[in-house]
Amino acid sequence: MKKNEAALVCFSGGQDSTTCLFWAKKHFSRVEAVCFTYGQKHSLEIEVARKIAADAAVPFQLLDVSLLSQLDRNCSLVNSAIEMDQEKPADKYPNTFVPGRNMIFLTFAAILARSKGIFNLVTGVSEADYSGYPDCRDTFVRSLNVTLNLAMDEQFVIHTPLMNRDKSAVWELSDELGVLDLVRRETLTCYNGVKAEGCGHCPACKLRNEGLKKYLHEKEQKTK
Amino acid sequence: MKKNEAALVCFSGGQDSTTCLFWAKKHFSRVEAVCFTYGQKHSLEIEVARKIAADAAVPFQLLDVSLLSQLDRNCSLVNSAIEMDQEKPADKYPNTFVPGRNMIFLTFAAILARSKGIFNLVTGVSEADYSGYPDCRDTFVRSLNVTLNLAMDEQFVIHTPLMNRDKSAVWELSDELGVLDLVRRETLTCYNGVKAEGCGHCPACKLRNEGLKKYLHEKEQKTK
Repeated sequence: MKKNEAALVCFSGGQDSTTCLFWAKKHFSRVEAVCFTYGQKHSLEIEVARKIAADAAVPFQLLDVSLLSQLDRNCSLVNSAIEMDQEKPADKYPNTFVPGRNMIFLTFAAILARSKGIFNLVTGVSEADYSGYPDCRDTFVRSLNVTLNLAMDEQFVIHTPLMNRDKSAVWELSDELGVLDLVRRETLTCYNGVKAEGCGHCPACKLRNEGLKKYLHEKEQKTK
Repeated sequence: MKKNEAALVCFSGGQDSTTCLFWAKKHFSRVEAVCFTYGQKHSLEIEVARKIAADAAVPFQLLDVSLLSQLDRNCSLVNSAIEMDQEKPADKYPNTFVPGRNMIFLTFAAILARSKGIFNLVTGVSEADYSGYPDCRDTFVRSLNVTLNLAMDEQFVIHTPLMNRDKSAVWELSDELGVLDLVRRETLTCYNGVKAEGCGHCPACKLRNEGLKKYLHEKEQKTK
């Protein structure tokens, strides 16, 4: 990382991307945020994201990629008629998977970044957690980075500070960055659209809350 | 190619993608077409594409990716205030280059195809011609193919029947496919939005018309 460079963060207002936003603020001299709307059931997400960015004095831009949710209606995040998988089915991805989503997000982010003279992209994807979404894996991100560079004949660098961190380690990073309380209080991760601690029973809440419990426990053990 | 498979063609109603459409009809048992609108100055293009697909009995779907033209206004194809480069500038791409366009098109095409159970994608990009757009090169398409497969954990195959053909060889292929006259008469390649022979002086017309002249001349020589 070069402190004198700029970075664009793919930002949703959730725990992961908020941690990335503050990670980027530490490592780059100029940080901007791009948020995507794609027919999510909970548009509160966007207001949450906008407020966090404003409080952090980070320029915020919203891009409408609702075409995504028109192409494939088999995802429970964009189609209320589908009941959300609470666990990963044995033979396929959970129906919270939006095929191609991260690829579309990062490609539009790169196009936007290039138009601003920014070539560092930051995304909060992680392969440490349960879902096994293919477009959260390190191999995918590296392949995408090469493809973006070839597509536009540029030298983008995609940063994935959370790639190998489980949720507990993401909480640890936010603590190191001095924003654990902010992330706890201000972000929205819950699939049912409830801020902070969330509904408590959807897969995203379970992961988040168990991660926090684990991290706080470990921290307590260390300081004993 | 497996004759019993389906293919989705990225289709604009121009010479190249129309040739690809008929190439696909020869090689696959089921062919569909996807067309992208992104704020082109000439929406006639879309009507031309729709008619060719209808005449060929190919299901046609239009996707709106006008977000593309909102992100980067430095392209003469989407911004009338910019005068079109007639030649490739020495130090950069011509301003007819829309950064990331083919990557966005092919990624949305793949998402759409997957939702229909189609895993063959056909695109008319070629690296044989003058412009040198990075997202028309074979290396880019191969990298994109890998990235798409990783993103969705599928086995897409991107077919590029025109990759190494100059315009004369594209005319030759349309002749082999029995559609040279149709392509000559029904397609729109011209940057100024004039069907068939076009305006005659924009870079796309020059390339198309010189290619046709060359091909017809070569054909005449052979049959002498």
